[in-house]
Amino acid sequence: MKLTILKDYLNDSIQHVSKAISSKTPIPILSGIKIDVDSNGMTLTASDTDISIQSFIPIELNDLNIIELERTGSIVLSAKFFVEIIRKLPAAIVEIEVKDNFQTVIRCGSSEIQLVGLDPEEYPTLPSIEEYRRFQLPSDLLRTMIKQTTFAVSTNESTPILTGVLWTVENGKLKFTACDRHRLGTRETNIEVASDFQLNNISISGKTLNELAKILPDQNTLIDIVFAENQVLFKLSSILFYTRILDGTYPDTSKLIPQSYQTELVINGHQLADAIDRAYLLSREEKTNIVKLIMNEDRTIEISSSSSELGKVTEQLETTSLTGELLRISFNSKYMLDALKVMDSELIHIGFTGAMQPIIIRPEETSSLLQLILPYRTTN
Amino acid sequence: MKLTILKDYLNDSIQHVSKAISSKTPIPILSGIKIDVDSNGMTLTASDTDISIQSFIPIELNDLNIIELERTGSIVLSAKFFVEIIRKLPAAIVEIEVKDNFQTVIRCGSSEIQLVGLDPEEYPTLPSIEEYRRFQLPSDLLRTMIKQTTFAVSTNESTPILTGVLWTVENGKLKFTACDRHRLGTRETNIEVASDFQLNNISISGKTLNELAKILPDQNTLIDIVFAENQVLFKLSSILFYTRILDGTYPDTSKLIPQSYQTELVINGHQLADAIDRAYLLSREEKTNIVKLIMNEDRTIEISSSSSELGKVTEQLETTSLTGELLRISFNSKYMLDALKVMDSELIHIGFTGAMQPIIIRPEETSSLLQLILPYRTTN
Repeated sequence: MKLTILKDYLNDSIQHVSKAISSKTPIPILSGIKIDVDSNGMTLTASDTDISIQSFIPIELNDLNIIELERTGSIVLSAKFFVEIIRKLPAAIVEIEVKDNFQTVIRCGSSEIQLVGLDPEEYPTLPSIEEYRRFQLPSDLLRTMIKQTTFAVSTNESTPILTGVLWTVENGKLKFTACDRHRLGTRETNIEVASDFQLNNISISGKTLNELAKILPDQNTLIDIVFAENQVLFKLSSILFYTRILDGTYPDTSKLIPQSYQTELVINGHQLADAIDRAYLLSREEKTNIVKLIMNEDRTIEISSSSSELGKVTEQLETTSLTGELLRISFNSKYMLDALKVMDSELIHIGFTGAMQPIIIRPEETSSLLQLILPYRTTN
Repeated sequence: MKLTILKDYLNDSIQHVSKAISSKTPIPILSGIKIDVDSNGMTLTASDTDISIQSFIPIELNDLNIIELERTGSIVLSAKFFVEIIRKLPAAIVEIEVKDNFQTVIRCGSSEIQLVGLDPEEYPTLPSIEEYRRFQLPSDLLRTMIKQTTFAVSTNESTPILTGVLWTVENGKLKFTACDRHRLGTRETNIEVASDFQLNNISISGKTLNELAKILPDQNTLIDIVFAENQVLFKLSSILFYTRILDGTYPDTSKLIPQSYQTELVINGHQLADAIDRAYLLSREEKTNIVKLIMNEDRTIEISSSSSELGKVTEQLETTSLTGELLRISFNSKYMLDALKVMDSELIHIGFTGAMQPIIIRPEETSSLLQLILPYRTTN
């Protein structure tokens, strides 16, 4: 392999694929980035077996010569040092030459870097994806849906399936579900698929989806999403992002969501979040995060928290409407803040079915987004 | 104590003094901020015994009424929660009322916060400063001098005196010295003092000076600096910053600096720093940080580092001038980068007196700033 390449293109691709590198991989070759060069261009691959990312740099793009190819070939270079040094090279054009025994020389301006490469034959091959189910989603919508659900996945590795976001498709509706046994977040959207298109029990790691969100293009472009036996492939313009589907059966959470409410509250979400945030500051010192909500006859609500050592925070808030039975209910303020943060309308609707029953938070205007948190059992 | 105060003024003052709060103070009352209110205004005090910071908020400033005073008094409030809650209060005016048993109520918009206060009588009194030696320094210059020296102080607590920056004044010149046995940084400046004004063996903690730098005003104003028996007081416009002088005798470092050089190198400091930074990336992986500098007959230099596992980085650099004996010398690249980062001119001068002797780095044009690093003893 021998070529010169424009540094900025090489650097961008390396930054993208390096997100799949795990610092504690048990497979030594996966600590490297694989570089394959053929007559079309350069393909970079990185993988931690759960995620694999591939980025392609063409020889030429819009009449701009990105690569001057002298000899095709492949090499694997240790990511740790390679990722940083490429970013810091002094000139715009980088020469890469692979010699005998995978010895690799990188030249750029006044710098010469000799790297001990690894045998590309030892690098595992990426899963082959049979494209039997696929649909498209705009990148902005995908990023928003990820943000509105991943925070609610479980961080407890003893139930791996709950560390993922469940993807289901039924009746032309894609639904994301995340649940950690204390709270649940769901977000739906219509997609263009055949009427009999179905997806179920596809759970994708929340962490992986957050990594994907970081490299989704800023311009709102359509992302191809392809589902195979145990892999999902996201096709971005020049990047392929592969992820494993989590093993196991995702529990049925549909029964958790009440069909009707005893009490319904409509309130400005920002004001509520700010008030809970102040009460959280105190409850955090008590390490419980518990705040209390009391509904008053005059349709105001009181948010409070207290600490025997430090004192008490009390917040009075007007509501837009408050109907049904007046409740006193306690909950984890951190969970409530997380749920309020992803609401996409100013007015939010909170439904209650009793002091010991799930609290349902959703935007006042739409029902495509729903967050559920379980209350705390307290003595008063 | 009872008053209302504009939140932004209160918040700014709290943020300033809270820099003196240590999370692990052995004296419980020092985990609090002391508030004293008299007919002139409000004084906030925080201290960890090494540093004490006092901030004053006047009743009125430029015809703006900042405080509406109803009743004077004092209280100590636990900093941890107080600092954050004030920042997050919902309205522009904050009411503070201290009731019996130091119970304190803070009201702001729809929020009411009850705090368990502490007895202000138990708060230690600040050192009284007899102003027998003092001078002034522009805030920008003081900040620069701090930045150019503190990185070189020792982090080893077994020799506390070396964790400080030595301040000396002689012949109308103020000099900062920092030294950790492997490197030394000095910066001098002329100050306006009587010709017989002297300071010696005043060592101030590098950490403390970095905290001071953070609250120095952005506008270039004159800072009053007052030296007492074992304290130094920095007088900023509305802030008093007290710090302890470190115990012990600062070692004489003047002998370390060679009077003449065998080899002198003048080079672009940014290009040298970038080249060393790339070599550092590799040497860091070897956990040694060692890079090698080789001087060539053609007046170029070569910077290199190598790792048996990863490979080798070689950088060729032009020099502006290179005179004297051609050397091969190895040094800690991190120390060299730290020294180059604070140079205030493009061209820098590096002086050598042999491969085992101190390396002296200074700007080409001025001699008020000087950095010294010791080379590594290597086999070739």
